[in-house]
Parts: sequence; C-alpha cells; structure tokens
Amino acid sequence: MADLMSNDMFLAFSKYATIVVLKMMFMAPLTGYFRITRKGAFSNSEDRKKMLQTNPDVERVRRCHQNDLENIISFVVIGLLYAFTGPDLSTALLHFQVFVGSRFIHTVSYLLALPQPSRGLSWVVGIITTFSMAYRVLTTALFL
Amino acid sequence: MADLMSNDMFLAFSKYATIVVLKMMFMAPLTGYFRITRKGAFSNSEDRKKMLQTNPDVERVRRCHQNDLENIISFVVIGLLYAFTGPDLSTALLHFQVFVGSRFIHTVSYLLALPQPSRGLSWVVGIITTFSMAYRVLTTALFL
Amino acid sequence: MADLMSNDMFLAFSKYATIVVLKMMFMAPLTGYFRITRKGAFSNSEDRKKMLQTNPDVERVRRCHQNDLENIISFVVIGLLYAFTGPDLSTALLHFQVFVGSRFIHTVSYLLALPQPSRGLSWVVGIITTFSMAYRVLTTALFL
Repeated sequence: MADLMSNDMFLAFSKYATIVVLKMMFMAPLTGYFRITRKGAFSNSEDRKKMLQTNPDVERVRRCHQNDLENIISFVVIGLLYAFTGPDLSTALLHFQVFVGSRFIHTVSYLLALPQPSRGLSWVVGIITTFSMAYRVLTTALFL
Repeated sequence: MADLMSNDMFLAFSKYATIVVLKMMFMAPLTGYFRITRKGAFSNSEDRKKMLQTNPDVERVRRCHQNDLENIISFVVIGLLYAFTGPDLSTALLHFQVFVGSRFIHTVSYLLALPQPSRGLSWVVGIITTFSMAYRVLTTALFL
Repeated sequence: MADLMSNDMFLAFSKYATIVVLKMMFMAPLTGYFRITRKGAFSNSEDRKKMLQTNPDVERVRRCHQNDLENIISFVVIGLLYAFTGPDLSTALLHFQVFVGSRFIHTVSYLLALPQPSRGLSWVVGIITTFSMAYRVLTTALFL
C-alpha cells in the first residue's frame, strides 16, 4: 500500500482531491454563518424557536454547496480512475489544477453574485476538464 | 499503478462507473435547458432580472439529479471496494451492468413521468444491486 | 488486486465506509415511509393524484439525508486517500470509528429533533475527524 503513496501521480491526485473536498466542506460552516447573521434563517425548529424562514443569501450558499457536490463528486471518481490510466504527470497536473482553480472561481462568482458569464464559464471549464479525463478512462477501459 | 489498469476487474469498474457518472453529469445541462425553455425559471437573480420562480418540469429534473447523486455515490464507493474483494468477473459485470441499466431506466421514467411502478422498480433494482455488493464487502471485511 | 484486500488498513476502511454508506442509503426508504404515513406528502404527480405538498417531518428526513451526502462523501474520499498514507492501524481505526459513530448519533439527533447541541456536536465531531485525516493526506502529498 505504501507503494501507491510513493507514486507521484497518486500523490498529485490526493493533493488536489483533498483541497477541493476541503473547499466543499467549507460551504457548511459558511451556510451556518449566513443563517446566524441573516436574522435567523433556520430550517430546524429546535435551532430557533421563534421563526423558520428562508433567506436569499442562505439559499445562495446552499445552491453553491449543491453545485459543488454534483461537480466535485464527478471529478473525484473520474479523476481517481484517470490517475490509473497512466497519463503524463504534467498533463494530469494540468487537469487537476484547472479543475480545482475553476471550482474556486465558481464559488467566488456564485457567492458574490458576479455578473455572468463568470459563474457559468468557471462551471463549464470544470465540466470540460472532467469530460477530458472521462474520455481517457473510457478509451482505456472500453478495450475490455 | 499501470498494473491496476491491466486488471480486467478494475477496467470493468472504471468503464461502468464512468458511464454512470457521465449520465449523472448530463442532468445539469438538462436542468439548464428546462430553465430556459420553461419561461425562465431561474434561481439566481444575476441570471434573469425579471422573475425568480420555480417550474414543475425544472424541479422534476432537479429531483432526478438529486436521486442520481444519492444512489450513484453509494454505487461508486461500494462498487470500488467490491471490485477489490475478488469476485468472478462475470458476476461483477452483471452487478455493474444491472446497476447502470437501472439508472438509465430510472432517469427516463422520472423525466417522462411514466406511470408507476416503472420509476420505483428501477430505483429498487439499483438499490438491491448495491446491497448485494455491500454484502460481499462486509463479509470480506468483517474478518478484521 | 487481491493484495489490497489482504491489507488490514484497506479492510478497515472498506468496513467502515460500507457501513456508513449503507446508513446513508437507509435515509431514502425512511423518506418514503414518512411520505406515506404523513398524509401523502409526495413530490411527483404520478405518485399521488390528489395533492402535492410538503410535510415538516418529510423535509426533516430529507435535510438529514442531504447532510449525510455532504459529510459522508468527504469522509469516503479523504478516508480512502488517508488509508494509503500509512498511518498506524489503531489510529486509523479510531478515526473511522469516531466518524461512523458521530454520523449515527447525528442521524438519531436529527430525526428525533433532540435539543441542541446534540445534533451540532455530533456533526462537528465528524468534521474534525475528516479534517484530521485531510491534514495527514496533505502533509504527505504536499512533498510533491
């Protein structure tokens, strides 16, 4: 098992997958922060007796979190399989870095409600990166 | 690392996991398509100045996407571990193919709102396939 | 490939990852049970002709499921990478067991609406466990 962690490709994947998952995890406390600062927009009655309501800022963070879930899961699964298809390390690093960068830009664009196409473009870049890795996995695996 | 990708079992898992994740990724542009064609049902104020509203068709695609997330994540995690328990290749292929097939039928049933039990049945078949793999993983791993 | 499954660390991860994913999968039939028992709170018109409505209990199970998705995915990804960094087996088992235990307590606290901080605390314990594993992955992988 130690062999795998002495492999540069696996290390590179581990690094970027962990960074982007940590970024995703950060959305949960951020939602909590918005819930508290935006006049108590809670969903659970045991958290706040007085009122249960939605708040546009809280809902925005939640949609951003959901978008992270949908896209980062695809990246993690396909990226892990891709790492085993034996691509060039530099090509793989490029894929991982572009994806992780695109997700950070996506989050900033989403939370600050920057004018489009900043959010849409960063989302598309992440999708294209994942498709590019999926293409390599499929061309490798379809020989089965 | 190249060893793993010359392993038929890992290749089979890679192929079906990638196909089903790509299917899941396809739900996002489909949501966008419905948002545009269904009289601008957007969630973010920067996307459409005039109105923010929900639309039954858009919400349907989103629920289908959410159901994919919940079920495909379980399959990917348990299927990967299952591939390492050393099942027969034909048994493993059967599991992977039945699961992936059930999710495609589920999506079609959901989006076209086919009469039940088409959607419910395809969902249950996917769940049973995942349970069957989880059972093997647990019987292998519980010897620990 | 059989080598990996004769590795105690990988077996330990497989066991706890499978248990916690099965726990997450259990939320879906539970939602269905609440939908049926809580006066038909369905989301899809083909499931119930008469009425489409939300119900506080059903929404509570759904939020709990969503929280599982967000947290268990992070654990599975980071836990798998962590297992390959060569930690002590006892340390790794402690991480896996604390995480899985915290999620079971979280689910019970959530569904029974126990007074805070039971739900919040169990959530935080799971997050800290995941962070602790992510820290080890990053310190291993950042040497790249």
